Amino acid sequence: MRIGQGFDAHRFASADAAEAVVRPLWLAGIEWPGEGSGIEGDSDGDVAAHALIDALLSASGLGDIGSLFGVGSSAHGAGMHGVAMLRETVAYLESHGFTPSSASVAIIGNRPKIGRHRAETVRALSEAVGCPVSVTATTTDRMGFTGRGEGIAAIASALVEERE
Amino acid sequence: MRIGQGFDAHRFASADAAEAVVRPLWLAGIEWPGEGSGIEGDSDGDVAAHALIDALLSASGLGDIGSLFGVGSSAHGAGMHGVAMLRETVAYLESHGFTPSSASVAIIGNRPKIGRHRAETVRALSEAVGCPVSVTATTTDRMGFTGRGEGIAAIASALVEERE
Amino acid sequence: MRIGQGFDAHRFASADAAEAVVRPLWLAGIEWPGEGSGIEGDSDGDVAAHALIDALLSASGLGDIGSLFGVGSSAHGAGMHGVAMLRETVAYLESHGFTPSSASVAIIGNRPKIGRHRAETVRALSEAVGCPVSVTATTTDRMGFTGRGEGIAAIASALVEERE
Repeated sequence: MRIGQGFDAHRFASADAAEAVVRPLWLAGIEWPGEGSGIEGDSDGDVAAHALIDALLSASGLGDIGSLFGVGSSAHGAGMHGVAMLRETVAYLESHGFTPSSASVAIIGNRPKIGRHRAETVRALSEAVGCPVSVTATTTDRMGFTGRGEGIAAIASALVEERE
Repeated sequence: MRIGQGFDAHRFASADAAEAVVRPLWLAGIEWPGEGSGIEGDSDGDVAAHALIDALLSASGLGDIGSLFGVGSSAHGAGMHGVAMLRETVAYLESHGFTPSSASVAIIGNRPKIGRHRAETVRALSEAVGCPVSVTATTTDRMGFTGRGEGIAAIASALVEERE
Repeated sequence: MRIGQGFDAHRFASADAAEAVVRPLWLAGIEWPGEGSGIEGDSDGDVAAHALIDALLSASGLGDIGSLFGVGSSAHGAGMHGVAMLRETVAYLESHGFTPSSASVAIIGNRPKIGRHRAETVRALSEAVGCPVSVTATTTDRMGFTGRGEGIAAIASALVEERE
């Protein structure tokens, strides 16, 4: 049994962006229509999925999201949704002899209100990872970049088992 | 064995508040007299206890502190101390077949100086959770909202066992 | 099996300091020449090593880096490198009946670019701790004190086993 720690933070896309189309908000494996602008990033900006990916890769000693998916708009992960990236991460772990046994992510930000759709997030993430994945959420009382609504952060932990 | 991650942050109550009575400071399960104003919050604002509660609930797949205790001044958890909330959390876990086996919380803030009463915090939290709970503390070198003394944060991890 | 959580943050030393000598940058157990100024601190400022030390001590119920190494320029840990502090921490754990089985640290900051030398960091930290230690790295999209380049932070988790 090995442990992994992951962290990620991204900026909310400007609500008053010049683009006519508002970027959709994806977080914790699902879309959140009607909960404001989305999150910046080369992929869908799903900080919860990304923190989980780092936790899973770290537990397995297989680098991090940057080394697996690349960085920038030409990266392998560009345009991918968090759940698709998680599935690819778990396939990579399995090909190296590791199986996730449990994972958890704490989301820090003003919106969306995770509690409204927690069951859907848990289902989406757990299906993608193939083990129980839990989701908590909190705010920072208007303090710091998450409290001012500039962005959103996530801290994740994972346990993986190495096959004999 | 399942893992859970928790996070919480709260603002220090103003020292120069209009109220004649200074809010007492509760953290990591104990009161800290003489260490300045307390922490805002509907309960006692004990971010260490709250982060542990999220870690325990997440490890067990049972939601988070908001879903168990509610949010706001009319919430079930309003006015409760961290240790009482932890006891209720653990009873909830047990009724769903989970037993905490180990937990740890890292407190981030300028005050109080945890090292002065670490043994008391460990005793209070471990008794409430019914397993070893450890406490570390650090500052952020005057950076960010914790470094400016605006508030205090805590990151927690927990392991729970599911009964057969 | 017990779990521990650790966190640390330090300020980057001024690049335009009056001192003629630029402070070397040490992080995650290795030196990073050519990647800018070092990190402030009584020791070498290695936040990754320090967060891991707190995670290991917390998992073992043995206090934190402040209680083991002291605080300030006259502290026992003053001037020590992260790897040396980790070795001393593990010896302390062993003398109390605990053995690290797995650890992981997530580094949050703009520089250095961990991916360029991840293998060396993993080797240095794993040798010091005597078990697999993994390293991930991310930024905060120019948000907060890490995003503004004021400093660097690290979150660590560890699992330890208690000898019979």
